[in-house]
Amino acid sequence: MQSDRIRFQSYKDKVISAQDAALFFKDKMTIGTSGFTKAGDSKAVLPAFAERAKSETIGITLITGASLGHTTDADLANNNALYKRMPFQVDATLRKKINEGKVLFIDQHLSETAELLENKHLPKIDIAVIEATYIDENGNVIPTTSVGNSATFAHAADKIIIEINTSIPFEFKGIHDIYISKNYPNRDVLNITAADERIGTDYITIDPDKVIGIVFTEIPDSPAQVTAIDPKTAAIANHLLAFFENEIKEGRLTKSLMPLQAGIGKVANAVMSGFAKGNFENLVMYSEVLQDSTFELIDSGKLDFASASSVTVSENCYKHILDNFEKYKDKILLRPQTISNSAEVIRRLGVIAINTAIEFDIYGNVNSTHISGTKMMNGIGGSGDFARNAYLSIFVTQSSSKEYNAISHVLPMVSHVDHTEHDVDILITEQGIADLRGLAPRERAKVIIENCTHPEYKDELSNYFNRACLRGGHTPHILEEAFKLHSRYIETGSMKQNCSVELPLH
Amino acid sequence: MQSDRIRFQSYKDKVISAQDAALFFKDKMTIGTSGFTKAGDSKAVLPAFAERAKSETIGITLITGASLGHTTDADLANNNALYKRMPFQVDATLRKKINEGKVLFIDQHLSETAELLENKHLPKIDIAVIEATYIDENGNVIPTTSVGNSATFAHAADKIIIEINTSIPFEFKGIHDIYISKNYPNRDVLNITAADERIGTDYITIDPDKVIGIVFTEIPDSPAQVTAIDPKTAAIANHLLAFFENEIKEGRLTKSLMPLQAGIGKVANAVMSGFAKGNFENLVMYSEVLQDSTFELIDSGKLDFASASSVTVSENCYKHILDNFEKYKDKILLRPQTISNSAEVIRRLGVIAINTAIEFDIYGNVNSTHISGTKMMNGIGGSGDFARNAYLSIFVTQSSSKEYNAISHVLPMVSHVDHTEHDVDILITEQGIADLRGLAPRERAKVIIENCTHPEYKDELSNYFNRACLRGGHTPHILEEAFKLHSRYIETGSMKQNCSVELPLH
Repeated sequence: MQSDRIRFQSYKDKVISAQDAALFFKDKMTIGTSGFTKAGDSKAVLPAFAERAKSETIGITLITGASLGHTTDADLANNNALYKRMPFQVDATLRKKINEGKVLFIDQHLSETAELLENKHLPKIDIAVIEATYIDENGNVIPTTSVGNSATFAHAADKIIIEINTSIPFEFKGIHDIYISKNYPNRDVLNITAADERIGTDYITIDPDKVIGIVFTEIPDSPAQVTAIDPKTAAIANHLLAFFENEIKEGRLTKSLMPLQAGIGKVANAVMSGFAKGNFENLVMYSEVLQDSTFELIDSGKLDFASASSVTVSENCYKHILDNFEKYKDKILLRPQTISNSAEVIRRLGVIAINTAIEFDIYGNVNSTHISGTKMMNGIGGSGDFARNAYLSIFVTQSSSKEYNAISHVLPMVSHVDHTEHDVDILITEQGIADLRGLAPRERAKVIIENCTHPEYKDELSNYFNRACLRGGHTPHILEEAFKLHSRYIETGSMKQNCSVELPLH
Repeated sequence: MQSDRIRFQSYKDKVISAQDAALFFKDKMTIGTSGFTKAGDSKAVLPAFAERAKSETIGITLITGASLGHTTDADLANNNALYKRMPFQVDATLRKKINEGKVLFIDQHLSETAELLENKHLPKIDIAVIEATYIDENGNVIPTTSVGNSATFAHAADKIIIEINTSIPFEFKGIHDIYISKNYPNRDVLNITAADERIGTDYITIDPDKVIGIVFTEIPDSPAQVTAIDPKTAAIANHLLAFFENEIKEGRLTKSLMPLQAGIGKVANAVMSGFAKGNFENLVMYSEVLQDSTFELIDSGKLDFASASSVTVSENCYKHILDNFEKYKDKILLRPQTISNSAEVIRRLGVIAINTAIEFDIYGNVNSTHISGTKMMNGIGGSGDFARNAYLSIFVTQSSSKEYNAISHVLPMVSHVDHTEHDVDILITEQGIADLRGLAPRERAKVIIENCTHPEYKDELSNYFNRACLRGGHTPHILEEAFKLHSRYIETGSMKQNCSVELPLH
């Protein structure tokens, strides 16, 4: 079994336990590990290190592709094993530690971490931990369900630990396209002009002298949680599909649209699933993550090809993929996140970017990361990489949430800006769609308030906008009231005016 | 004279007066004109249209490359001839009309206007007005001191008016590199891997059937105002130059740095001039505007090549350039702003972006456009195009301004975000430099407050940060106080606490 997975002669004696591998970590080291949206993460070495940190005072800077699966980030945070963490996370325990100031988090565009490392704007990676399907005859690594930053970590690290995951079938060989740009000043063209174009190898090149250990595991990825489509997400999806149908009617798009990117989560999944029903054909994706809906769309014959940096699917979907791998193999491609999220390629292909907002404001600024301007949720992820360079930059969210619509997601001013008014084309809630193309701020405010706001907040937002206009300005604001709804929520538990009257006692 | 300038036979009878040309404009038309940072703008047709609008109710949507020179924008605004204006302006009168809500302004990334037009996300251009040095034998246009969006306007417009400027010498032929990408889905690679690489023609292709008139003018560009370097700008320049010298010492940069972009204005000019004194060599620029400092650096032998979209210089410098044109001709190149500001090229070349902020906050967010979050100053221009994809994204501003330092330019929260914390690497004021690379928000706040803030505001910002940290959060804020300094300025004329005590009566 092991000899099948290690085909490079001089690695045969490098197999060690996860516990021994974790002993290579020293206090204050910078560790780079594979893992992107829970896929292809370290399931043996990082957990063993978290366990070690239970009884030892030791902390690292941990850089990943994106989020990790299982309880790894939680265990590391609980055992105070994280000094600094970047570029993305989705773990509730780690989030709490970040917001307490106990773990320093850097919220980065997913395309940029590798750039910063190669340009030496971040500390050097001491040890890289790379998940592999197997090691080929030349010592190169065949990745698993994600590529993330693994190729850059392997290139930039002093030492490498390879984590071979025997739950991944050998058939995964071939679905990756690995390419690392040369360092400055010899940076080259990324010669991708279609989502299915390959520019690299199907393995990660490894310097054998760097490899200090090979660890075996058979733990599969954490499955994606697939939640049923609720009426709000269905309404958002329907607004978006109607928008696309109108764009086709107006001659701006064809039935194959443009390459699609969709963020993670139930809205994105609902939207993507919706394409199966609509009058679309020969769709392609150029995205970060392939989710259940990607494979449903391939099955329905609507989607011709999907490029991303990871496959993050439910347990059922994963089983379905493995059972039908030959069908999907030539329709998907996993790339390093520097390529999947590259400004150059996104602009050249003309990607339609569909991402989820936490809140947006009446002028079209979007907050994707912070609750009340202060508490980190997950991170910006790749939303900025795509929104900034997209053919169309679309953000979706529900207009309100919580019992009695205590939170409005449309606000006078967002409490944190991740996507500026300059970069947002279309906003959608279950209430409707605001097409901001060609609109000045005062025009945008009217459309956003009218089309996207929950009815219970429409009057207050209109009132704010009208009073702000009396003060004048290109982007009229009343600064001392700009965060009034946020403050009211903190004070009363609801953003609504006079909420104490409206809320029943309970 | 005229026959030298019109070498295409069938254009000979198309010469008309500016007044007649302006009669082609109809109410609510969309007009695209050349002009980028005051260079190469329409000096005959637009002013004639402004004059016509004095006695007629007529308004247009005016799209340019960037700012116009002379009093054109002011005259158009004063005569209510502008319905909508994009993507940039610097005129005091127009600014006032925008902030009164009388002219609708769209503040766009300079790289994007042409994209939006070609993708039909903006209304079609009815008439393009293109300034030309001359028209060649095939009817093509040799541009003048800027390229801006002229090539796209000529391509996308229904009709074209060519404005031949006889003040521009024939020698300008050859300094332009015109390339328009094919429309989606046939977008191609921008094959520029060095600032001096050419990918296009040295003329703008014109469809002769679109040409409805040719107008002659001999009015030169508005000269750039060059202000003397004051102690604050000198201090900012010195901090930046010391930073670069340290980057060289640390081995991250060589003496030729990386291609440089610098915004407009005295700080940028001071910084660029500073390179002449430092230990730098074989510099290149990949920027938007070539200013006086560019030609000084060429003269000093430090700068090998400069690519941009316009030449905007003082009267003396312009004369100097014309007198020595052979010396400069093979060292400069003017490109369409889709190329000079292209994300793809900026990232590939690894541009160092140096831009001016209006204000920045303790977490590294930058406001480049709005006074008190409400009033438009000029616009984002190309700063976002460069900052977002730069090798290093640097923003400079003075720490305080006005008498008694009534305004702090370092604030708890910026009142408008143009460049998010994700996109800002280095902040500099005359007080010092904050190197934000690899820092989490709480770390950034300490460095920014300590190094960049004016001493009179340090205590209040530290106090805000410390109290915010007690509330917790990844990016600690006290939302109800976040704009307290802005509000205090509006109320008292100073951002300082107890300013009524400190300000003498006068």
